[in-house]
Amino acid sequence: MGKKDNKQEFVAQITPRSEDFSQWYTDVILKTDLVDYAPVRGCMVMKPYGYGIWERIQQEMDKRFKATGHQNVAMPMLIPESLLLKEAEHVEGFAPEVAWVTQGGTEVLQERLAVRPTSETIFCTMFAKWVQSWRDLPMKYNQWCSVMRWEKTTRPFLRTSEFWWQEGHTIHETPEEAQEETLTMLNVYREVAEDVLAMPVICGRKSDKEKFAGARATYSIEAMMQDGKALQAGTSHNFGTNFAEAYGIQFLSREGKLEYAQETSWGTSTRLIGAIVMTHGDERGLKLPPRVAPIQVVILPIAQHKEGVLDKANELKQRLEAAGLRVFLDDRDTYSAGWKFNEWEMKGVPVRLEIGPRDIEKGVAMAMRRDTLEKQELPLEGIEASVAALLDSIHDTMLAQARAFMESHIRQATNMEELEQGVQDGFVLAPWCEDRACEDEIKEKLNASTRNMPFDQSALAPDARCVCCGKPAHKLIYFAKAY
Amino acid sequence: MGKKDNKQEFVAQITPRSEDFSQWYTDVILKTDLVDYAPVRGCMVMKPYGYGIWERIQQEMDKRFKATGHQNVAMPMLIPESLLLKEAEHVEGFAPEVAWVTQGGTEVLQERLAVRPTSETIFCTMFAKWVQSWRDLPMKYNQWCSVMRWEKTTRPFLRTSEFWWQEGHTIHETPEEAQEETLTMLNVYREVAEDVLAMPVICGRKSDKEKFAGARATYSIEAMMQDGKALQAGTSHNFGTNFAEAYGIQFLSREGKLEYAQETSWGTSTRLIGAIVMTHGDERGLKLPPRVAPIQVVILPIAQHKEGVLDKANELKQRLEAAGLRVFLDDRDTYSAGWKFNEWEMKGVPVRLEIGPRDIEKGVAMAMRRDTLEKQELPLEGIEASVAALLDSIHDTMLAQARAFMESHIRQATNMEELEQGVQDGFVLAPWCEDRACEDEIKEKLNASTRNMPFDQSALAPDARCVCCGKPAHKLIYFAKAY
Repeated sequence: MGKKDNKQEFVAQITPRSEDFSQWYTDVILKTDLVDYAPVRGCMVMKPYGYGIWERIQQEMDKRFKATGHQNVAMPMLIPESLLLKEAEHVEGFAPEVAWVTQGGTEVLQERLAVRPTSETIFCTMFAKWVQSWRDLPMKYNQWCSVMRWEKTTRPFLRTSEFWWQEGHTIHETPEEAQEETLTMLNVYREVAEDVLAMPVICGRKSDKEKFAGARATYSIEAMMQDGKALQAGTSHNFGTNFAEAYGIQFLSREGKLEYAQETSWGTSTRLIGAIVMTHGDERGLKLPPRVAPIQVVILPIAQHKEGVLDKANELKQRLEAAGLRVFLDDRDTYSAGWKFNEWEMKGVPVRLEIGPRDIEKGVAMAMRRDTLEKQELPLEGIEASVAALLDSIHDTMLAQARAFMESHIRQATNMEELEQGVQDGFVLAPWCEDRACEDEIKEKLNASTRNMPFDQSALAPDARCVCCGKPAHKLIYFAKAY
Repeated sequence: MGKKDNKQEFVAQITPRSEDFSQWYTDVILKTDLVDYAPVRGCMVMKPYGYGIWERIQQEMDKRFKATGHQNVAMPMLIPESLLLKEAEHVEGFAPEVAWVTQGGTEVLQERLAVRPTSETIFCTMFAKWVQSWRDLPMKYNQWCSVMRWEKTTRPFLRTSEFWWQEGHTIHETPEEAQEETLTMLNVYREVAEDVLAMPVICGRKSDKEKFAGARATYSIEAMMQDGKALQAGTSHNFGTNFAEAYGIQFLSREGKLEYAQETSWGTSTRLIGAIVMTHGDERGLKLPPRVAPIQVVILPIAQHKEGVLDKANELKQRLEAAGLRVFLDDRDTYSAGWKFNEWEMKGVPVRLEIGPRDIEKGVAMAMRRDTLEKQELPLEGIEASVAALLDSIHDTMLAQARAFMESHIRQATNMEELEQGVQDGFVLAPWCEDRACEDEIKEKLNASTRNMPFDQSALAPDARCVCCGKPAHKLIYFAKAY
């Protein structure tokens, strides 16, 4: 069976992106073994290949959290209803999607317990117990866990009833410190998106309508998928003293007065895996960013039955692993080379190295990079450094390509017609009066929502008018259809 | 305020071990900020210092799991009741302690969902879906998560309604492979206990009464606490085809026949933190094994207001951190040196380094090791290596001390009187007829349970008689009071 046939067989399993982006996504994540549906409504199982990506995202995030002075903790997964009810906006936002435990063993519970949809309420309760004086501040904590939100329509990674995430929760002495923390963590998210996931994002502040239930201000990073839709990839919230007042988080200030603590929270989730798929994938399947790819290099021995080939392939594997790379040697003899080529392309492994008798004779391996499908011979001498450089180059190229796509799909609009056209396949930056009625109208008419307001508002003309109502505009804000 | 006063102040907060071991334990874990009670019945909050220990246990375990060919996955936390009911023994074992979700959002569920007490049922369901042929085997997976068991009496780390753990689940072609896996993972647990936690354990097979609900055979590592009681610190189960038959995990064998897969599971949990506390702690508080201590070295600057002291202390910190050590520089000027000495002793930091003007002049730092409280001067030149060696020495000494304690508290018994005496403050190895009635009688009369049967049974005399009923004995087994 020739290479072409094999390729066709694989590709036939994946719906073309241009035909049905949504089905393409589902095909890719299932066929590449990232994920499976669980036998529980709306829940997913992360398989080793998908969970492997999550583990690397966790490592990259976690080291940045620690470098910015945070510590990990673990809070209980169940929250008594009375605790959840203390902050009114928050309850209103989350109550409709809470899963409730009403029975423990044989005992019917007097008070039902929420499976955490998020943990502000429990962190606040503990903060109130732990903080006494300004000397105890700041407290900067994070937890890695899963949370549960009873969703009606679900899609693996993008929206599931249970998802895995990290949630940071911090309390501070002053509003300035809390605001600095909020933006520091937003920037950590931007950094991980761009420097690790090769995924450009726009950063800014959410509208009041779109902010987190109970926050004074929410900031987000928003990524653009290849269908031009937005995916909110991380949020960072400044609560001010809103939760502190509801939960009694008070401390004795430097001036000896009892004050409410300033609070933040921030989170990213397994959604990021869906974002990677939809930012980088192509007709052949996944294209994984090298810094989170569970397998960075796949080695394919050619004519592996010939003497010395497997030995050399194994030696190559060991050398690359010793250099800190994640390598898989595919020495299965039940599949043709062509089949393997296509399988690993579909699985998005950044670099393929072929090594056969002729390569060994020449002292080289043939490298193919998944992003551009370009091939090049690499001398075996010093191959650790050249493969590492190749992986960095792939990262840079993927980021540049995604950035070029995003930039060419961001348009400006001054009226509803331009806005409507722009959100068909991208983001639109438009002036807005800050009135919620306009947001609602745009949502209803165009199925587009506000994403965020860029920090730099210098492009807002003094006489700019709202894209919707035509009244004086106060902000430039991004609109897009969204996941 | 002198050093002595400070010490007394701290020690006064901790009940003496000899007076009330149980209260000593509770005092230590709360005063050292390992843990706090959660506002949910029977649940705990792991604070940064406690969670930091868990993170290091996870790292040490996880790298060994991967080195033995396992991959991490994530399964849903909710399990439909119908799935839980498929394996009869398993249901019987876990049903009484399951927390049930009966409502999702505003909807009352048609089928209630268990918050996972353990995940065999969901792994089995997915295995049945994933495995087709012998070529797919083995599948060797692990997950890190928390589980929920509705416990009546709880104590932080030792027994809580929610606890954090890892659960490995594997399926294999042959009984031999499954048995090898079961024992390999038991040995990984033994290795982590001894080489990482400095905690000696006895390994062996559990009695039928004490085995896991649904297992063909359960093996355990058992540690001895300083009150002579046993703590089951890890278990590894061989299920044979028991679950595979209930859940339909079948594969096409090399001979082309449909066969049931051989299965194992194995787990360790945050109980290990409780085990560390009760194996090593003393009147001053915690004594943390260096390889999991969140802070391995605390640097205390002496007369830190004097010129150059803090600079030198910071330089020392950076050097030790660059060498891969976990270091905290306590430069708080609101506490006396004596206060700090006692606080860090209570928190069990393995090495304290004092550095003051005279030390700097001499080019040394004064080191105190927490295990023996011995002091020694260390030249600043090459201090990275000497501190690393000191940490290894502390590990070795702690392991040797714990082993000596355990060995001196293991006795032999041939009758109930000797057994009764032995389990007052240690383990008893005694011949047993393998009849459950004797286990039940011993449990009722002496409040001691069987722990496990050592692999090496050569010490069992051919004419040995059961310690309880006097009939012919078939096994040597350990008895102990247990956590």
